[in-house]
Amino acid sequence: MMKPVLRVLAGEPVWPPPIWVMRQAGRYLPEYRELRAKAGSFLDLCYNPALACEVTLQPIRRFGFDAAILFSDILVIPHALGQDVRFVENEGPRLEPVTSAADLARLAEVVPLERLAPVFEALGRIKGALPPETTLLGFCGAPWTVASYMIAGKGTPDQAPARLLAYRDPEFMRALIDRLVAASTAYLVAQVDAGAEAVQIFESFGAALPPALFGPLSLEPVGRIVRGLKEARPHAKVIVFVRGGGPNLRRLVDAGIGDALALDWTLDLAAVLPGIPARIATQGNVDPLALIAGGAPLDRGVDAVLAAARGRPHIFNLGHGILPETPVEHVEHMVRRVRGV
Amino acid sequence: MMKPVLRVLAGEPVWPPPIWVMRQAGRYLPEYRELRAKAGSFLDLCYNPALACEVTLQPIRRFGFDAAILFSDILVIPHALGQDVRFVENEGPRLEPVTSAADLARLAEVVPLERLAPVFEALGRIKGALPPETTLLGFCGAPWTVASYMIAGKGTPDQAPARLLAYRDPEFMRALIDRLVAASTAYLVAQVDAGAEAVQIFESFGAALPPALFGPLSLEPVGRIVRGLKEARPHAKVIVFVRGGGPNLRRLVDAGIGDALALDWTLDLAAVLPGIPARIATQGNVDPLALIAGGAPLDRGVDAVLAAARGRPHIFNLGHGILPETPVEHVEHMVRRVRGV
Repeated sequence: MMKPVLRVLAGEPVWPPPIWVMRQAGRYLPEYRELRAKAGSFLDLCYNPALACEVTLQPIRRFGFDAAILFSDILVIPHALGQDVRFVENEGPRLEPVTSAADLARLAEVVPLERLAPVFEALGRIKGALPPETTLLGFCGAPWTVASYMIAGKGTPDQAPARLLAYRDPEFMRALIDRLVAASTAYLVAQVDAGAEAVQIFESFGAALPPALFGPLSLEPVGRIVRGLKEARPHAKVIVFVRGGGPNLRRLVDAGIGDALALDWTLDLAAVLPGIPARIATQGNVDPLALIAGGAPLDRGVDAVLAAARGRPHIFNLGHGILPETPVEHVEHMVRRVRGV
Repeated sequence: MMKPVLRVLAGEPVWPPPIWVMRQAGRYLPEYRELRAKAGSFLDLCYNPALACEVTLQPIRRFGFDAAILFSDILVIPHALGQDVRFVENEGPRLEPVTSAADLARLAEVVPLERLAPVFEALGRIKGALPPETTLLGFCGAPWTVASYMIAGKGTPDQAPARLLAYRDPEFMRALIDRLVAASTAYLVAQVDAGAEAVQIFESFGAALPPALFGPLSLEPVGRIVRGLKEARPHAKVIVFVRGGGPNLRRLVDAGIGDALALDWTLDLAAVLPGIPARIATQGNVDPLALIAGGAPLDRGVDAVLAAARGRPHIFNLGHGILPETPVEHVEHMVRRVRGV
């Protein structure tokens, strides 16, 4: 019998909905923190197949989630292309900014997949260790989201440096996005070959793009990755994570990009889902802060998702990544409530 | 004859549309930087009627904008209530956090308007100095936006500390919001009495609220302020600035709050305006980064707004505050292009 997450991604309503949690392998878990402390740098952990496998499996063992998502980071792509990438504890990623054609020329034209071999090895190990009903997810960042880090060298409010450069040097921006489309497509194909059954593309920063830039920088590049992956590996399923619920979401729905759309916590599913055709599955969208709070706010958030998603192909999830302060018992409670046990 | 901005706020399409720019009195102007350097702290400047008047008038003299907006800050309300508020150069506001009923009890129950007397004196001076066709705007922050600063003590990504507290202690949050509704209403009434012809309420942070919190924390409190102001001063006009264009915007439109909605730069006006009844005026929404870039991206942004807003009651503006790096010549160019001169 087909795995629940894959049934939903094929358009079938499954009840109770399968559940996993964005960033489920992470700092809120004591067993993750223990392993993390021994693992060297964050990138060392991402590139250690045995440890990346172990970390990926931790939340599956603890909560029996219906999907395991590869433990990695969206910035392994710029790193593999040759950009200097570091993760500074409590601050986030720091990159040597790429802001000109000359900077871009110093990066690899075609992503050297051999540099990402540990990721593929981790996927193989995870696949071999997962329970038979658990779906293995790969992922990458959407080109605009990744480009915004590559240009600013760090996370920035509303991605202002990248957005300004998109206006000032559209040719450079097109070249950078094209480089990332090709690299991401090759990366996802290789993830599928290594064992990923579905992939999620994280467009974490699409919401701050003005309408004139959303098309060329987000909608079209993500669409090209999805088409490229599906041409190469027709059975691969794709979830696209989007932030914000304005006209950009409408354009994504109308373009029919992806087998599922992962929706953030700001959307009222009861209002939004009727506007999404049933052939597009959905995923989400409890507020990660309601999960930290627990109690009545969490129950109300869980119940609102369940009520709105009933009868639709929907994967239960948070509307953004789980936060380090989250009590593990609240996650247990959420899983039980979703499963009605 | 009625001033162009007031005609638009009364529902009349005016062509070319009147224009002003959010944060138009600010660091992108050399004459502002010069005065700012001599003025002491940022709050000193806000509370100095002669200097606040002068700063407010600077962009009117230079560009002939159709509206002058009082030079001040949304955090004068917590400051007047007794919270410690400082502005740290290049970092932003820092407040002594208010996170409990005990903290709130240390603040004034009713805003002592006499502490804000310099603001009202500034409004009177500005009113006396403005050209007859220029509308004088007052403003305040929306309760949720102000509360998010009061709770976290600074600006925070997605207002996580305030959002978490809203789940954990809804009673405190309600009390804080109620305090701010009352203070903001009294403050706006006094601004109108001092000479403001219309006011803008800045809900800069409504977009990160989940649907269950948007109603009680944003929609309803802003609605209460607008109703309270209009009951006290029926001729006062209100513009509500919102971020994001999802279902929350729809709820605001359906609730009919405000004479005008100021829309941010992420919205495609051509897609959004047809869904807003013509009795609600609109304002916006060029990307402030397109204004920095200038050239073709700016012209395209200006033209898109003009094309979408033609025939509607619309006030031309940016979709967010003008940034310090903005070249003054680009502002001049935008004004000429909007006015067709």
